[in-house]
Amino acid sequence: VRLPSLVAAVDRALQATGMPPRGGTLVVGLSGGADSVALLDALASLRRRRGFRVVAAHLDHGLRAGSADDAAFCAELCRSLDVPLHAGSADVRGRAARERGGLEQAARRERYAFLRRVRDEEAAAAVAVAHTRDDQAETLLLRLLRGAGATGLAGMRPRTGDVVRPLLAVSRQEVLAHLRERGLAWREDPSNADAAHRRNRVRHELIPYLEERFNPGIRAALARTASVLADEAAHVRAEAEALLAGVAREESGALLLKRVPLAEAPTAVARAAIRQALLRAGGLAQVGALHIDQVLRLARAKAPSGRRLPLPGGREARFTRDDIRLEKRTGRGTKAVSSREEP
Amino acid sequence: VRLPSLVAAVDRALQATGMPPRGGTLVVGLSGGADSVALLDALASLRRRRGFRVVAAHLDHGLRAGSADDAAFCAELCRSLDVPLHAGSADVRGRAARERGGLEQAARRERYAFLRRVRDEEAAAAVAVAHTRDDQAETLLLRLLRGAGATGLAGMRPRTGDVVRPLLAVSRQEVLAHLRERGLAWREDPSNADAAHRRNRVRHELIPYLEERFNPGIRAALARTASVLADEAAHVRAEAEALLAGVAREESGALLLKRVPLAEAPTAVARAAIRQALLRAGGLAQVGALHIDQVLRLARAKAPSGRRLPLPGGREARFTRDDIRLEKRTGRGTKAVSSREEP
Repeated sequence: VRLPSLVAAVDRALQATGMPPRGGTLVVGLSGGADSVALLDALASLRRRRGFRVVAAHLDHGLRAGSADDAAFCAELCRSLDVPLHAGSADVRGRAARERGGLEQAARRERYAFLRRVRDEEAAAAVAVAHTRDDQAETLLLRLLRGAGATGLAGMRPRTGDVVRPLLAVSRQEVLAHLRERGLAWREDPSNADAAHRRNRVRHELIPYLEERFNPGIRAALARTASVLADEAAHVRAEAEALLAGVAREESGALLLKRVPLAEAPTAVARAAIRQALLRAGGLAQVGALHIDQVLRLARAKAPSGRRLPLPGGREARFTRDDIRLEKRTGRGTKAVSSREEP
Repeated sequence: VRLPSLVAAVDRALQATGMPPRGGTLVVGLSGGADSVALLDALASLRRRRGFRVVAAHLDHGLRAGSADDAAFCAELCRSLDVPLHAGSADVRGRAARERGGLEQAARRERYAFLRRVRDEEAAAAVAVAHTRDDQAETLLLRLLRGAGATGLAGMRPRTGDVVRPLLAVSRQEVLAHLRERGLAWREDPSNADAAHRRNRVRHELIPYLEERFNPGIRAALARTASVLADEAAHVRAEAEALLAGVAREESGALLLKRVPLAEAPTAVARAAIRQALLRAGGLAQVGALHIDQVLRLARAKAPSGRRLPLPGGREARFTRDDIRLEKRTGRGTKAVSSREEP
């Protein structure tokens, strides 16, 4: 039996990630959009042959008037594919307000928290999400336009912990062809319509422009770059964690980093270690390349003792002879440099 | 005394790279274009204060009708700045034909060979080239459009061996402002007019488009990304060299790599090691991500014994139980996959 090409691609991706194991369960995040509908359909058609269970999970983000219709659509689809569905709802606006963050970030957090609850209830091996090669390409451009470093540019990997992405090598075009062929309907842009203005401009304006003017294969080229970068970033991050284990300690609410070994580490590893330390010290939703470079420069300076570097979120870095102390800011009148560079 | 801003930037860059040492000589690559004229002027105005000598080197590539005028212009400029000039000429077309490569690559090789000859004659400490922040940004986009991995995306570093780039943090706008202020003339695009079609489109079309539609600070953002990637790539490359020292050996014209340690290395390090091995085995002007991935996949496969992978340049990779042999192709009828992905 020859499998339809999208189903074959999903099959290969599952084999490569080793997920789910035979007899295991896979939870599929189902928004009702084209990508997740195609993924669910492909997994449903593979489950018997490969010996695993498929369960769908749909979260109503409550961000748009039509979101209840999305839930009804998903329920009907799951009935027709004979897939059990967990439906939930979340207060994304409330979370965004509480955390003083953006809607998109709050929605993502609620979604992954929901997927993990369903995974636990179902004792599932992994969660499958429907990111495609086009998402990979768009994300790389978005981050590049902002000026991220390699760790920030790094793309999504086929598997990160218990999350697998079986469509990562599949283009949106292939997704749509599969849906047409199978006569499946989907909901347009159901989960993130109002939060994705910038991404939509990359998708509908920048990528077609690059395709026409510079490289017709730009989507594949960007996706490959993102995936190679993801491997390099994972490697540097692993080394940074090993470095951090040797140089970081907590002391009365502050995170202390030993200066000398940090200053002497290769720049790439030191940068990644500082990024992780800043995140661990808290207060930063997003660590900018600017802060990382400032901390590294001061760590490497000859006599930075006593210097204070204000950081966002009410934190600061204080440089003593031997250590860098990351802690709540105590001084007054110091203003943190913004961690974002875009206007 | 407060230095003009471009001179101050060059001064800072020299301090950071430690080049040239006090009493040493710096050879400046001088094309006659805006960037190299500004760099030469800045270095000439710093030489006394910082105690080093400056010597210029101009290579006539013989690619355009007006190239002799460029040489005359450089001679006049050097007289007015009181800088000794080495002028040379090269047969770039001949080299390109002999090596079956592009004009741009042949020109670059001739240029660096000439700069190193001048460095040796002058017993100079280092060679300075006039790459700017804009070059850094353009190169990143060019490579990204082609789909390079991180090592391929990685930007230029302020210093690589004996080559320093004192303008790498300076924008082209600042270069032009400096020339205006100092009343200095320059030659338009003298060295690479016919070879730089694609780069010119990135410079004059893509970057202004991104600036207007997505991020007014795109040049700085891209340059920062390129420089962070350069550090990460340098680190991964150093580890790859260490890995290669343990797994590679030469045997009757073939380069042999031990399969198991290569297959078990982190993906990023293994990729970089394979890239270096393919270059060392010869025959490839440019190693594509595709070949690297194929070699790695076969190295990691369970039973690849006897498999042959044709490579460009008449080479092949042959997989035995313990080794990967990179050597001249012996079989017939195998066609190499192209190492380039663009049309």
